[in-house]
Amino acid sequence: MRTEIYFDNSATTRCCPGAVEKMERVLTEDYGNPSSMHHKGVDAEAYIKETKEILAGILKVKEKEICFTSGGTESNNLAIIGTAMANRRAGNHIITSAIEHPSVSGPMEYLAEQGFSVTYLSVDQAGLVSVKELEKAMTKETILVSIMMVNNEIGSLQPLEQLAAVIKKINPACLFHVDAVQGFGKFRFFPGRMGIDLLSASGHKIHGPKGIGFLYVQEKVKIRPVLFGGGQQKNLRSGTENVPGIAGLGQAAKECYEQFQKKQEKLFALREQFIAGVQKLDGVKLNGPGGREGAPHIVSVSFAGIRSEVLLHALEDRGIYVSSGSACASNKPGISGTLKGIGLDPSLLDATVRFSFSVYNNPEEVEVCLQALAELLPMLRRYSRH
Amino acid sequence: MRTEIYFDNSATTRCCPGAVEKMERVLTEDYGNPSSMHHKGVDAEAYIKETKEILAGILKVKEKEICFTSGGTESNNLAIIGTAMANRRAGNHIITSAIEHPSVSGPMEYLAEQGFSVTYLSVDQAGLVSVKELEKAMTKETILVSIMMVNNEIGSLQPLEQLAAVIKKINPACLFHVDAVQGFGKFRFFPGRMGIDLLSASGHKIHGPKGIGFLYVQEKVKIRPVLFGGGQQKNLRSGTENVPGIAGLGQAAKECYEQFQKKQEKLFALREQFIAGVQKLDGVKLNGPGGREGAPHIVSVSFAGIRSEVLLHALEDRGIYVSSGSACASNKPGISGTLKGIGLDPSLLDATVRFSFSVYNNPEEVEVCLQALAELLPMLRRYSRH
Repeated sequence: MRTEIYFDNSATTRCCPGAVEKMERVLTEDYGNPSSMHHKGVDAEAYIKETKEILAGILKVKEKEICFTSGGTESNNLAIIGTAMANRRAGNHIITSAIEHPSVSGPMEYLAEQGFSVTYLSVDQAGLVSVKELEKAMTKETILVSIMMVNNEIGSLQPLEQLAAVIKKINPACLFHVDAVQGFGKFRFFPGRMGIDLLSASGHKIHGPKGIGFLYVQEKVKIRPVLFGGGQQKNLRSGTENVPGIAGLGQAAKECYEQFQKKQEKLFALREQFIAGVQKLDGVKLNGPGGREGAPHIVSVSFAGIRSEVLLHALEDRGIYVSSGSACASNKPGISGTLKGIGLDPSLLDATVRFSFSVYNNPEEVEVCLQALAELLPMLRRYSRH
Repeated sequence: MRTEIYFDNSATTRCCPGAVEKMERVLTEDYGNPSSMHHKGVDAEAYIKETKEILAGILKVKEKEICFTSGGTESNNLAIIGTAMANRRAGNHIITSAIEHPSVSGPMEYLAEQGFSVTYLSVDQAGLVSVKELEKAMTKETILVSIMMVNNEIGSLQPLEQLAAVIKKINPACLFHVDAVQGFGKFRFFPGRMGIDLLSASGHKIHGPKGIGFLYVQEKVKIRPVLFGGGQQKNLRSGTENVPGIAGLGQAAKECYEQFQKKQEKLFALREQFIAGVQKLDGVKLNGPGGREGAPHIVSVSFAGIRSEVLLHALEDRGIYVSSGSACASNKPGISGTLKGIGLDPSLLDATVRFSFSVYNNPEEVEVCLQALAELLPMLRRYSRH
């Protein structure tokens, strides 16, 4: 097998061996239904409790404030639709940003159809929303603000605490939801102390399995379920709990936050090595944060005159896997709302590639990728039409 | 470790080794995001395609008619809420039965709040709905009928083809949804040929993993998503596909339908052995079908004068795991709607235990369980208050 250099870790990650091992045990031995009253049910329930303890410990929230979902998309849907519907009497206005993931903007469009009024905050060149613009947009009718923590395409990190402060100052009853799918596991943060009421995260972005995620819901938040049934998880999310997924998520989260500083440092170092190298090449433009003010694992680069898909496949031929825009938009590349949002030159919209790292990557891989780019760029430019 | 006799297979099942192996490979090697444009995405997509082929082959439907969900609960919610909302203009009336799983009755209650009119069909002593009652209930306003295939508590099998014929005769545009969570893997059936438009199934009831299920949606059905986002699965179910879960589900379904007759026969034989033995004991009443007119794997028995929970724990002390009512109602035992629905003597409602078998069980286990019951029943009756 040829070497693989996987630089698409914002799309998804390899599951860590510890999580796989745990899942295997749950699947074959401790396979009970947590709702069952006998030992096999109790044993299954223990895995759920363990993961709740891990997550609550990392985020410094209460165990009962963790609700498991099928992933980031469901977490965002539950947070947004669930709170909007439950708090409709308090107001009709919702605020979000122009560069959210489709699993946030999708529910927003749905709520707009249902008669809610949705305001989209713009972002600056760095991909940041303006605290002032939020302040102006907030009204007494605003029941929910949803802003992502780390942008999945360019890695910008929003000023969440400042945003929370403005929200709570103008309307203390207004809820603040944060899509932290790209931020959880990459930063140490404490939503309860930051004024965040709801926070979404996903297993498969942090070396856990796909098909599992969670939503932190501050205990006083009024929220309505999106899926109805057996009343599991205090009636907030019905359905037999995905115990193997939950166990895998817990293990992955635990490993993620062990020696956390060292891991974050490793990511920042890979990123800095890559940025330094890529900026030496001709006709490249770095999008989003360049230093440590953004996410440690995402680099977005535009390559003038080269279609992103062409570069993606040229790198793939050398065993290097990257992304053109966001893989989360399901084979519908289209034009990225984020890149438009930051005002990227239209000619570069379709010439942008995302490189995203994980702790499984190393400096040699970055070097190989930089070398490949140095060789490929002139060649691809020569063959591309003008 | 002491012997375990797991007779709670309607609550959940042990994952088969073939599925676990497949999941492990997906989690650690073929971990790509199916939406990614490079090889790792394509490899992941291949698992989805493979499972679709398996399921479509078993049900004799089209691959594009399979939509993956996080499980039976989501499948039922998507089928019911998704079609009701998409077909609202055609009518406002929905029909279901009085003995559905909470993941069907829950969405029905939600739709009733949203202004839909819901009719609940009664069932007879055997747990069967009446084709005549359905015929009377149907109007030109009826847009959806949702009836389960196999009842999860007593194993009754509904006359689906007759029900479909009546529905389509009165209102060809009316959709027919079947919750087949307890039927898939236990019967060979072809929804497309039976007049079924939507059919729900779950992985963890057929020795697949938890956290995965699917909904068959006949290609002409108008349906709206319940979760919004990246537009995966033809926009019907957004969210990164749970590839390991999908791969595990496919493998489990495939194994389930290999040498199917033999497996079904084994289940029926275990069931008959158990029923013959239990009926020799004093003060027992069999609920639901006694012969092969029902499901092959479920036996519901009432034990006069013994609280089900007490018997459950007494059996558990001997390593035998059973269920009091349905485990799907999440630690809220309450009183079963199904047992009430079939008109069970009120004194027996709280004295009923479900034994459910899988192909991993054997006749020796049934014998041990019968022996345990023979010893426990007189003792428990002696100690229980009158």
